[in-house]
Amino acid sequence: MNIPQSTLPRVVIVGGGFGGINLAKKLLKEDIQLVVLDRRNYHTFQPLLYQVSTSGLEPDSIAYPIRKILKKGKNCFFRLTEVLEIDHNNNTLHTSIGSIRYDYLIVATGTKTNFFGNESIKDNAIWMKTVPQALNIRSLILENLEQSTITDDPEERKKLLNFVIAGGGPTGVELSGALAELRAHVLPNDYQEIEPSEIRIHLVEGSDRLLPPMSEYASAKAKEFLENMGVNIHLNTQVTGYDGSTVSTNKDRLSFDAATFIWSAGVTGAIINGMPKESIHNKANRYLVNEFNKVKGTDNIFAVGDIALMKTEDFPEGHPQVAQPAIQQGEHLAKNVKRLLKGEQLKPFKYFDKGTMATVGRNRAVADIGKIKTGGFIAWFIWMFIHLWFLVGFRNRVVTFFNWTYNYINFDRAARLIIRPFKKYNSLTTKIENVDAGS
Amino acid sequence: MNIPQSTLPRVVIVGGGFGGINLAKKLLKEDIQLVVLDRRNYHTFQPLLYQVSTSGLEPDSIAYPIRKILKKGKNCFFRLTEVLEIDHNNNTLHTSIGSIRYDYLIVATGTKTNFFGNESIKDNAIWMKTVPQALNIRSLILENLEQSTITDDPEERKKLLNFVIAGGGPTGVELSGALAELRAHVLPNDYQEIEPSEIRIHLVEGSDRLLPPMSEYASAKAKEFLENMGVNIHLNTQVTGYDGSTVSTNKDRLSFDAATFIWSAGVTGAIINGMPKESIHNKANRYLVNEFNKVKGTDNIFAVGDIALMKTEDFPEGHPQVAQPAIQQGEHLAKNVKRLLKGEQLKPFKYFDKGTMATVGRNRAVADIGKIKTGGFIAWFIWMFIHLWFLVGFRNRVVTFFNWTYNYINFDRAARLIIRPFKKYNSLTTKIENVDAGS
Repeated sequence: MNIPQSTLPRVVIVGGGFGGINLAKKLLKEDIQLVVLDRRNYHTFQPLLYQVSTSGLEPDSIAYPIRKILKKGKNCFFRLTEVLEIDHNNNTLHTSIGSIRYDYLIVATGTKTNFFGNESIKDNAIWMKTVPQALNIRSLILENLEQSTITDDPEERKKLLNFVIAGGGPTGVELSGALAELRAHVLPNDYQEIEPSEIRIHLVEGSDRLLPPMSEYASAKAKEFLENMGVNIHLNTQVTGYDGSTVSTNKDRLSFDAATFIWSAGVTGAIINGMPKESIHNKANRYLVNEFNKVKGTDNIFAVGDIALMKTEDFPEGHPQVAQPAIQQGEHLAKNVKRLLKGEQLKPFKYFDKGTMATVGRNRAVADIGKIKTGGFIAWFIWMFIHLWFLVGFRNRVVTFFNWTYNYINFDRAARLIIRPFKKYNSLTTKIENVDAGS
Repeated sequence: MNIPQSTLPRVVIVGGGFGGINLAKKLLKEDIQLVVLDRRNYHTFQPLLYQVSTSGLEPDSIAYPIRKILKKGKNCFFRLTEVLEIDHNNNTLHTSIGSIRYDYLIVATGTKTNFFGNESIKDNAIWMKTVPQALNIRSLILENLEQSTITDDPEERKKLLNFVIAGGGPTGVELSGALAELRAHVLPNDYQEIEPSEIRIHLVEGSDRLLPPMSEYASAKAKEFLENMGVNIHLNTQVTGYDGSTVSTNKDRLSFDAATFIWSAGVTGAIINGMPKESIHNKANRYLVNEFNKVKGTDNIFAVGDIALMKTEDFPEGHPQVAQPAIQQGEHLAKNVKRLLKGEQLKPFKYFDKGTMATVGRNRAVADIGKIKTGGFIAWFIWMFIHLWFLVGFRNRVVTFFNWTYNYINFDRAARLIIRPFKKYNSLTTKIENVDAGS
C-alpha cells in the first residue's frame, strides 16, 4: 500500500467515524506509525445528517477532512480505500488498494443500514447513513414537490405529497419533525400551488413507543410534539414492503401510496470478512470485546464504537449505538494503546452516560440526563449547544451556528437545492429528465 | 403544463441565470402571469464556480432557490423542466413536462461548453458550467491526489500530479491560480507524501495573451502573477486532443501526461430548436436581437444575456458573454415589457461598462475599469467586494464572507471533501472503488 517502512510499531485504524477519529486524535504525537483507512476522505457528523436531508444545512458543514485531523501528527498516514478482508493470523489487511501489515489493528467501522432481508425495501426505499445519501433524500423530497405541481392526476399528486418514514428512533423522529417544519414554514411560500394540508407525513414504528431507548417521558413528549406538528404516528406497526409506489404494513388495511419512503428502522454492524468466528455476536453483527475493547479470540485487534459489543453490568447487551460510547471508547483506547506500548497494565473502559437527546423541531426537544427528564425549549437549547460543541472544526461550528440562527429567525431552510437530481420512480407517468448530464 | 388559465398576459422566461433572474425580479408585481422555466431549481452564481472546484466554497453558497425569488410575486410560477422546442408560429413551447402557450417569450438560456467538434476532448475532459460539474472537478482533483499517494509507478504518479487547463480566459486563469494556492498552502500539510514541486499546473491558451478580452496590461499582469505562483503558461498553443491520459497540442513535442484535464477554452450559445433560421448568428450560435432585445424575425420573442447578440457601434460583434451585460439587459427588458403592456414606446438598450476583472489568487487580481488598469491588492479587494455584493441572498453573502475570511487568515480551503467520487480514468492501473454505492 506504499506506506513507508519503519521501525515504529504500526497502528492501523479502519474507519473515520466518532470512534476512529477520537482515537486517532489522541495518538498523533506518539512514537508509532498511525494509518487511518476510510472509504471517504472526511469524517461525517452523523447526528446532523437529517438537517442536510431537509435543506437546513449544507453538507460541507457536517463533514471534516480526515487529513486535516492527521496533519498535526508526526507519522500519520491516511489512505482512501475500502478494507476487504482481515487476515488476523498474518496481521495483514487486504484492501482495494493493496495489502498492509499491522502491529495493532483497531476496527471502527460502525454500522450499516439493516433491511432485515427485505429486498423490496432495499431496492426501492431511500435511507441516510452518509452525506451523499442525505443529499439524495434532499433531492428526492424537492423533486417530488416539483413533480406534484405538474401532474394533472390527483392520485399521483397524492402519492408525490405523501412522505413515509419507517423507524421511530432518533433519525425517524428528527426527520419527520424537520419535514413538518418545512411544511409549516417554508413550503407555503415556495409552493403556492400546494395546500400544506395536502402534504402528509407518516412515521411508522414497530414498538409501542417512539425513541425506544429513551425514557417513557421522552417517548410521550416526542409523540405529543410531533402530533401537534401534524405528523401521523403509527405505533405497533411494521412496514412489510415497498414496491416504489405503495408502502405496505402488517396491519390490515393500513398502507400508504407514497413516492418518498425513508427507511430508518434498523442498523447492523459493518463487520469485515476474515475475523475469528467466535468474535462475532451473530444477532447484532458486532464484535465481542472485553473491557479493554480487545476483540475476542485475537491478541492485537481492538474494536470501538457501534461495531464493538462490550457486555457490562449496566449494559448486558452492549452500549447504545450512538456517538457518546464511540467517542469515549476511542479516547479510552488511545490511553490503553499508550499503556500497551509502554508495557503497562491496561485499564478497563467505564462508560459515563452524559444523557440522551433528540430534537423534534423549533424549540422542541427531549432529553434524559441522569434522573432529569425534560422536554421543550430548554432541552432544545441544550441539544443545539452540545451539537455545535461536538462538531469538528471552528469553521463548521461558525457556519452551522449562523445557518441555525438565520433559519430560526427567518423560519427558513436556505439549502433547498436539487444539486444533483435523484429520481428512481420511473414508474410515475410524469418523468423529470435527468438534468445533470448536460454540458 | 398545469399552469392555471388566466386573462392576464403570460410572460415565459426560459433560464434562471443572470439575465432571466434579474428580469423576473423586476416583473414580480406586474399584472402578468410570470412563468420561469429552468432545468435546475436554483440560480447559479457562475463567477464563483471555480472556488467550489478548488475547495474554497461550499456549493450551497453560490446557489439560490428560484422559487425563493419568485415567492414575493403575485402570479409567478416556476417549473423544473427542459425546454425542447419553440413553435414560434403558434406561440407555444414544448418541454419535457408538456407544452405551454406564451404571450411573450424571453430566452435567457446562456451558453454551453464548446468542444469545436473534438470528440476526444468531449469524451475525456472535465469542464465547469454547473455546480455538479464544479463538484466533479473538486472530487477529481482530490481523488487524483489520493491516488498519487498509493501508486508505486513513477510515471503514473507524475500523471496524477499533472493538472492541465485549456483556455486562458477568466475561468482558466482563476482555476489555475486557485490550484497554485492549494499547492502552496494547503497540500503541503495535508499530503506530506507529496513534494509541492511534484505538482505541475499547466495553462494552455491559443492566442498570444491571457484574458484576451481585457487590456494588454491586465494580460501581462495576470501572466506575471501566475508565473510567480509557479503556473506554467503556454501561449499560442492549442490543445488538439485528450485520450484520458495524454493532452496533445499543435506544437511539436509539447504534450502532457495528465490525469486531470479541464477544458475551459470555449462556449457556444445554448439555442433552442425551432426558432426562425434568420434569428441565429451561425458562428456564435446566438440569437440576433435588435436594440430592444427582440429576436430577429419574431414579434413577441426576446433574448437577453449570453445567448443574445446585439450589434452596436461599440460592440459590433455583440456584448461580452459575462454577467454584467446579462444583468443589465434583464433589468432593461423588464422595463420594456412594462412599456409594451402599457402600449408605450420601447427604449433601446445601452450597455454601461462597469469594467472587467479577474482574480488570480491571494491579494492578486487584475481590473480594467474605464481608463484605469490596475493589478494587485486593490483590484483583488474590489473583486471580493463586488462578488459579495452580487451574490443573491443575505445568507449566501454572510457564509461566503466568513469562508473567505477564514480561508484568508488560515491559508486554508476547508471544503476539500470528496462528497461524491468522480473517477473516469479506469485506464490507470490503480483504481479506487466507487465508494458511493454502499449502504
